[in-house]
Amino acid sequence: MTQARIGVTGLAVMGANLARNLARHGHVVAVHNRSRHRTKTLVEEHGHEGAFVPCETPEELVAALERPRRLLVMVKAGAPTDAVIEEFAPLLEPGDMLVDGGNAHFADTRRREAALRERGIHFVGAGVSGGEEGALLGPSIMPGGSAEAYAALGPLLEDIAAKVDGVPCCTHIGPDGAGHFVKMVHNGIEYADMQLIAEAYDLLRQGLGLSPAELAEVFAEWDRGELSSYLIEITAEVLRQTDAATGRPFVDVVADRAEQKGTGRWTVQIALDLGVPVSGIAEAVFARAVSGHAELRSAARDLPGPAAPAAGAAGEGFAEDVRQALHASKIVAYAQGFDQIRAGSDEYGWDVDPGALAAIWRGGCIIRAAFLDRIREAYAADPAPVSLLLAPYFTDALARAQGPWRRVVARAAELGVPAPGFSTALAYYDALRAERLPAALIQGQRDFFGAHTYRRVDREGAFHTLWSGDRTETEA
Amino acid sequence: MTQARIGVTGLAVMGANLARNLARHGHVVAVHNRSRHRTKTLVEEHGHEGAFVPCETPEELVAALERPRRLLVMVKAGAPTDAVIEEFAPLLEPGDMLVDGGNAHFADTRRREAALRERGIHFVGAGVSGGEEGALLGPSIMPGGSAEAYAALGPLLEDIAAKVDGVPCCTHIGPDGAGHFVKMVHNGIEYADMQLIAEAYDLLRQGLGLSPAELAEVFAEWDRGELSSYLIEITAEVLRQTDAATGRPFVDVVADRAEQKGTGRWTVQIALDLGVPVSGIAEAVFARAVSGHAELRSAARDLPGPAAPAAGAAGEGFAEDVRQALHASKIVAYAQGFDQIRAGSDEYGWDVDPGALAAIWRGGCIIRAAFLDRIREAYAADPAPVSLLLAPYFTDALARAQGPWRRVVARAAELGVPAPGFSTALAYYDALRAERLPAALIQGQRDFFGAHTYRRVDREGAFHTLWSGDRTETEA
Repeated sequence: MTQARIGVTGLAVMGANLARNLARHGHVVAVHNRSRHRTKTLVEEHGHEGAFVPCETPEELVAALERPRRLLVMVKAGAPTDAVIEEFAPLLEPGDMLVDGGNAHFADTRRREAALRERGIHFVGAGVSGGEEGALLGPSIMPGGSAEAYAALGPLLEDIAAKVDGVPCCTHIGPDGAGHFVKMVHNGIEYADMQLIAEAYDLLRQGLGLSPAELAEVFAEWDRGELSSYLIEITAEVLRQTDAATGRPFVDVVADRAEQKGTGRWTVQIALDLGVPVSGIAEAVFARAVSGHAELRSAARDLPGPAAPAAGAAGEGFAEDVRQALHASKIVAYAQGFDQIRAGSDEYGWDVDPGALAAIWRGGCIIRAAFLDRIREAYAADPAPVSLLLAPYFTDALARAQGPWRRVVARAAELGVPAPGFSTALAYYDALRAERLPAALIQGQRDFFGAHTYRRVDREGAFHTLWSGDRTETEA
Repeated sequence: MTQARIGVTGLAVMGANLARNLARHGHVVAVHNRSRHRTKTLVEEHGHEGAFVPCETPEELVAALERPRRLLVMVKAGAPTDAVIEEFAPLLEPGDMLVDGGNAHFADTRRREAALRERGIHFVGAGVSGGEEGALLGPSIMPGGSAEAYAALGPLLEDIAAKVDGVPCCTHIGPDGAGHFVKMVHNGIEYADMQLIAEAYDLLRQGLGLSPAELAEVFAEWDRGELSSYLIEITAEVLRQTDAATGRPFVDVVADRAEQKGTGRWTVQIALDLGVPVSGIAEAVFARAVSGHAELRSAARDLPGPAAPAAGAAGEGFAEDVRQALHASKIVAYAQGFDQIRAGSDEYGWDVDPGALAAIWRGGCIIRAAFLDRIREAYAADPAPVSLLLAPYFTDALARAQGPWRRVVARAAELGVPAPGFSTALAYYDALRAERLPAALIQGQRDFFGAHTYRRVDREGAFHTLWSGDRTETEA
């Protein structure tokens, strides 16, 4: 009997497509699903693509795998993942590998990895990005877990990953939850990037009075320059689309309520714990939430705003200003995301290589872009920069962009077009540049009402002023 | 032997001051501290203020209390609170009340309340605001827990609370964690309010070239109008202060790194779980984090900015514009906070009365202000508004402010002065007003790369376009 190199349990579209991708690369794949019809359908429809071993039970699946066993779990995050682990772990032997390719919270992955390690089983939390098509044709893969597990698993994953300049978009991220952590931040960055593109679209449409079809051309043009990316490319595609039923632009018949699944929210929550300001991601998450508050929006529609701008009111050069503002804001959002990855890596001792991460995000995943190659280059030149903003390529881009960026944020405020992503990125940039921040006033207030003490600029120590006494200073 | 009406364990400054406040109001107070010297010191220094019963052991403390016992725990949040509960609970009897007056996370309070309820003990998580001085002279108190516990405890707490127009700043908030939840949001709002004041100060200083002493007069003037509040009042005091050691303005010798303890961060994390956009609080938390990143700020100081403005560059009327922008941004930040309270109340079935809450925040606490009376009035006129922004008083204020507010956000961007609080509030306001949001484009992108489906404006159902096929629409 042929032993399969790897097994996949959970054959919804992501699991099925990864199994097909593996089979297409010449690997024998044992496949299993709780309800058997999915297994049957997969083999019936795609059996010709490679060597599948359909399995009806967990026991069969485990028996079909060569040792040490490699088993990829593709089920819903949360309780279903725990249930599948509990089902399979007793059937596995020390040295076997259980891979969770779902969007688990990295804290769950850490917990599961520790519990399975005690039983001698390697648990690999692997972020997989690229959607359904990526899973089939080449995703970006971010596996965590032990180096030993990666040695046995990496070649298969690198085989099926996207390739950029022949380099696979898969690398060992770091121990335990590192893979799911960086996947979470990837998704957070994706939220920010999409929000910034949405603001650019909104500003151009309202400021210049351009139609979606005209805007599709603007984005297609941008896709040929430094903004070139999958998200810009599909923005042009979405804006170009006409709704067949009404003949109207597709974007105008779509309800303007953005949904979300949770990784953006997690990113912000974890960043808050780590003390990393990820304001670009936070504003993107909040903007989606605002869009979904139908009752509030309906009630608030008549709140007073500025006089409606005439079409083209924003004037000559506005499109180029918006392009520059988008580029600068994007640089800030990515820099914040990479700051969070460094902070997470430091906190949990993962030793994540940010340059290698940027390299595997160049292809396969939703944020794939030429831009990621600039990030990879920045880390190659300086593996531990204080911030990506300070890498020469990005500093130059910010220097070019900052004038237009300021004009766009100002214009958005005057036009009444919400641009929380653009404006928070600029505020962050200006806060970093500031010689002095008004945080000194905040420390004074805190000392006044709560005796929280403050530091001084001219000597060490913590100080408290006797605000309700004679207002002299005491050393705390 | 005299039985004490209430006991206090944990005699650091907050606990000691609450005990003194109780004694000064004629209540016999049993006092206890783990290390005995604090108990001794309290009675020695303040014994003349009222009737204290010093107790050396938990057993003595419990024996000193009339039944049902009221015991106020004033220790650090987290593990110390659990330790004290474990120490005292076995000594208590069914019907006794254990009150946690610290800054516990409301989820911990819910857990503790449920565990103690099983043992017949009422656990009351009570938010206490007002700092040390408030604790002594009259804080704002937000007790959660059972109505039965409030009946036995409320009169004492109302006795020692601040009074506004003779009304005590204490009311029963709701079951289990409700009190600590609203205290958390109170602190989040406080973060936002302080950040907005700090931005106003920074803009006036950099835009108009005014000195801290001159700015103290501006804030003192503002404190006589609609912005009248404790935080504006102490801002004037802090700005007026001169550093004795250097002769420089106090605010200029304080290190510009704002610290934080955690309730602001918690507020944002919980808001994200509840789907409530609290962007004003989030930007305040992030701004403090940015201020503390010394290495990053030092490295980023030379990033390019606009040409330095000449003193007074912002021109005539700028101070009034900033005052209006501060007022409008504050309205948004408070509205977002009250949205979070409603969402929490709905989620946990607390039935929090927002008008009663606004009433008890009028005095005693850090955000006390005339403004809270406007909020109380708004809820009196409409107990369940869709948003506070839509109450006539606030809508009118926003209508007056929106022009100046836009000018200030635009000017901040041009001057290079970070104003994340002002700009996020304006973006939120404009998003609520928007006829259409670019969230429709985001839904299109999500459907393109992840088949996440979208809704249509013209009919029910979920739809998916076959983007990589013939681009027809299918019903999902």
